[in-house]
Amino acid sequence: MSTSDAKGPIILVTNDDGITAPGIQNLVEAVRSLGEVVVVAPDSPQSGTGHAITIGQPLRLERVHQFEGIESWQCSGTPVDCVKLAREKVLHRLPDLCVSGINHGANHAINVLYSGTMSAAMEAAIEGIPSAGFSLLDFAFDADFDIAREVANTIARRLLESKLPARTLLNVNIPKLPRDQFKGIRLCRQANAHWEEQFDHRKDPRGRDYYWMVGAFVNQDEGGGTDVDALEAGFASVVPIKFDLTDTAMQERLSKDWKDLFV
Amino acid sequence: MSTSDAKGPIILVTNDDGITAPGIQNLVEAVRSLGEVVVVAPDSPQSGTGHAITIGQPLRLERVHQFEGIESWQCSGTPVDCVKLAREKVLHRLPDLCVSGINHGANHAINVLYSGTMSAAMEAAIEGIPSAGFSLLDFAFDADFDIAREVANTIARRLLESKLPARTLLNVNIPKLPRDQFKGIRLCRQANAHWEEQFDHRKDPRGRDYYWMVGAFVNQDEGGGTDVDALEAGFASVVPIKFDLTDTAMQERLSKDWKDLFV
Repeated sequence: MSTSDAKGPIILVTNDDGITAPGIQNLVEAVRSLGEVVVVAPDSPQSGTGHAITIGQPLRLERVHQFEGIESWQCSGTPVDCVKLAREKVLHRLPDLCVSGINHGANHAINVLYSGTMSAAMEAAIEGIPSAGFSLLDFAFDADFDIAREVANTIARRLLESKLPARTLLNVNIPKLPRDQFKGIRLCRQANAHWEEQFDHRKDPRGRDYYWMVGAFVNQDEGGGTDVDALEAGFASVVPIKFDLTDTAMQERLSKDWKDLFV
Repeated sequence: MSTSDAKGPIILVTNDDGITAPGIQNLVEAVRSLGEVVVVAPDSPQSGTGHAITIGQPLRLERVHQFEGIESWQCSGTPVDCVKLAREKVLHRLPDLCVSGINHGANHAINVLYSGTMSAAMEAAIEGIPSAGFSLLDFAFDADFDIAREVANTIARRLLESKLPARTLLNVNIPKLPRDQFKGIRLCRQANAHWEEQFDHRKDPRGRDYYWMVGAFVNQDEGGGTDVDALEAGFASVVPIKFDLTDTAMQERLSKDWKDLFV
């Protein structure tokens, strides 16, 4: 791209539902007034890809005309691949902000790990780009993104205006609610939750077994202040996320309990 | 499987290099004396899949005879899928321990996020299974796993004997060194590092562009006590890992800086 005539900050937009999803269209609309928007997004749905990268096969990257007046590219890889390619092969610099989404479906609690939407935002933050992922608690293709768009605009504007560290990363979830029941934005911690998987067992036409993954989200958090709590109470949740995964409490414990093991 | 005649603890073994990789053979050898070992591993290499799960297509799970005297299954999905299927469709219970690897190549520092090996171990820990991922700093197919096997045995034994929380997760990396230069095991924190990607740009026979992801690992950590430091000094590194990614310091900061935004 030509950055010489860039107006304002460069904002990279990506997602995991693919470049044709309504969610990314809404995210582009949410942030296009804040700077020069460039889209690099997957050419197909990539939900549940987590922080996967493509190393065993080559990547395609193609210019498309998906958004009126917005430079946009589709990539054959994962959301994380999109962020890497955007920096190296499209922008040739770090953008000032990366926003990912708006995901069709929740990425609260432990879903941050499975989510391609959040992994794209995390990859940007790892590379030193302030970043946020946005998710609406509605899987529908024709979901109402009005409130989510406003929340995304507000958070993106704050990230651009604030002098926060370059590696700042926010996980933002928006409840599925009519406007008169939406209560605002709440700062939260990640709920302690997991999925209880079940597998739908079937036989293919040749009689061979196969399985579809299905599962139930289980919130086992007993404290307050979580993203799950906030969303259930009608708030959008904002959880600051880090990617230094060191468990310092366990490090302290092992330094005593396993003292004889370590040199 | 039949658990009624189980001898000792149930140990689930998985990896991301695929069920035929020498690394998983060595891990089975490392832990088979510690309990009843069951292998559920990908049927093909899955390096760099991170915490991906398979939701857009069905999964295959097939019994194989890959390891002498060990119940083993191969799965068409990701390492995380393997752990989920193992619990639900093979073991029908939580195993007492999950070990993943031994990976052909490092999973220190930020690689914990990209690594299918570590994501499998993390999935187990999320589900309440004490867990560890093991990685040898040698990509070679015919790498020498002797020291790595001993380290894996030691750590696995400790995890089974200790009364650590069920969600304990360890990231263990082993240096590529001859025995007389190996210095022992060190408890560490995750180094602050990232990958500087480059893309090898080529043209296919039809003249269309494609890219291979290549990159350089950059350690920008300026403190001491990291896994990278330990490995460079000749030690195996053990980093306790958590999956509550809440950045509490940033949460504290935003509660002040963005006070007007939150309700």
